[in-house]
Amino acid sequence: MPRYALKVEYQGAPFSGWQRQKDQPSVQGAIEHALARLEPGPHTIGAAGRTDAGVHALGQVAHCDLTRDWDPFRLSEALNFHLKPAPVAITACVQVADDWHARFSALERQYLFRIMARRAPVTHEDGRVWHVKSDLDIVAMQAAADRLIGQHDFTTFRSTICQAKSPVKTLDGLRIERVDGFSGPEVHFHVRARSFLHNQVRSFVGTLERVGAGSWSPQDVSEALAARDRAACGPVCPGHGLYLARVIYPEPLFD
Amino acid sequence: MPRYALKVEYQGAPFSGWQRQKDQPSVQGAIEHALARLEPGPHTIGAAGRTDAGVHALGQVAHCDLTRDWDPFRLSEALNFHLKPAPVAITACVQVADDWHARFSALERQYLFRIMARRAPVTHEDGRVWHVKSDLDIVAMQAAADRLIGQHDFTTFRSTICQAKSPVKTLDGLRIERVDGFSGPEVHFHVRARSFLHNQVRSFVGTLERVGAGSWSPQDVSEALAARDRAACGPVCPGHGLYLARVIYPEPLFD
Repeated sequence: MPRYALKVEYQGAPFSGWQRQKDQPSVQGAIEHALARLEPGPHTIGAAGRTDAGVHALGQVAHCDLTRDWDPFRLSEALNFHLKPAPVAITACVQVADDWHARFSALERQYLFRIMARRAPVTHEDGRVWHVKSDLDIVAMQAAADRLIGQHDFTTFRSTICQAKSPVKTLDGLRIERVDGFSGPEVHFHVRARSFLHNQVRSFVGTLERVGAGSWSPQDVSEALAARDRAACGPVCPGHGLYLARVIYPEPLFD
Repeated sequence: MPRYALKVEYQGAPFSGWQRQKDQPSVQGAIEHALARLEPGPHTIGAAGRTDAGVHALGQVAHCDLTRDWDPFRLSEALNFHLKPAPVAITACVQVADDWHARFSALERQYLFRIMARRAPVTHEDGRVWHVKSDLDIVAMQAAADRLIGQHDFTTFRSTICQAKSPVKTLDGLRIERVDGFSGPEVHFHVRARSFLHNQVRSFVGTLERVGAGSWSPQDVSEALAARDRAACGPVCPGHGLYLARVIYPEPLFD
């Protein structure tokens, strides 16, 4: 059975998340349904990151096994045809080794979180950014973010339903920048790690936004981290500003 | 009656266009309805550009007359409150002279047209870009666009229902560039002129796309222009890639 890696882009809004659910639309379910139009199923695909409800992807990676030898480009075209009109697209496809795994072979996940900070309602970016009304102090947010880098017990920043065995993770990067967005200034959070706890990025961003707005100090974030207590976390921000941007593997996959 | 200039941002999809219509949602109607919540109407507002159905705006400019003296910021906040949940936002507001007119005082309109050229369906940019599947030759498109600059009889590039008295207009700029869009490469057309004929930008872009795809040569565009015949135009492209980006007045308005 040849195995194929798929680079997947999607809007999060219509889905209950990546993971297949009974009676609820999921991205995994949509792709497995499209695969069943090509070869009889059932199909079960693996993915690098199981994004939550409402969370988007620019570069999710999944793998699937098929019986026929497919030309990778033709496979992506056929899947895109059957995925319509769901806002899911296979943007690249390559054949990989039989033991290659979208989740277990991944070395790093990169997430992007977008905030639009302005008084006026958002129009073009509605559902694509988190809209906050206060100006954000980028320097203070970055100072607080720097205190989260490295290996820590992130109990404060994981949801109570997180299933990871350990709350200890290594955060490799959390860079905050102002960006000229298409319809105005945005603040982007670039977050990267080998793996994440459940709701970790949204817990970081919700807490750092409080720093940006002046309610919390960077020192408050250090203390929240040290507390190792979910109750010490700032408000968890909404998922619709979050994008699984890129997954890194030992060898470049789609380049 | 103090007069106020409004900078207006909107998604085009829900509207039959800028202009108020009986029994159809319009941007003008939405803003006039919001104004009536502040002061009894009827209100009639003027705008710099009467955008068509589906066409978006980043920087439309309109003006309104009110009886009370409003603080401009409070006026924009009150309008945004009453505009919800329509995807229309007042992003700036200033008081202007009584004889200032959003349409007649304007010196230049700047439009942006976005194309996403790729095989895979568009997800994040659905309804916000024109999706074409062929690669586009930017150099050939720019060479063709350069032949449209200046004062010409643009009969070829205006719709048959255009109500302008004369088909002679001066095109001041038509610059084409590749841009790193949020979810991948895009081609942007920056078009500027004092005023435009009906469907002129969409007629330009639809024709230039044919050049980019290799079906037309730049010389074909010169000949189409010289024909002064609507039938010589390339296909008119869809409105959902088009944005009224900016309107220029003799004095900076909102800066």
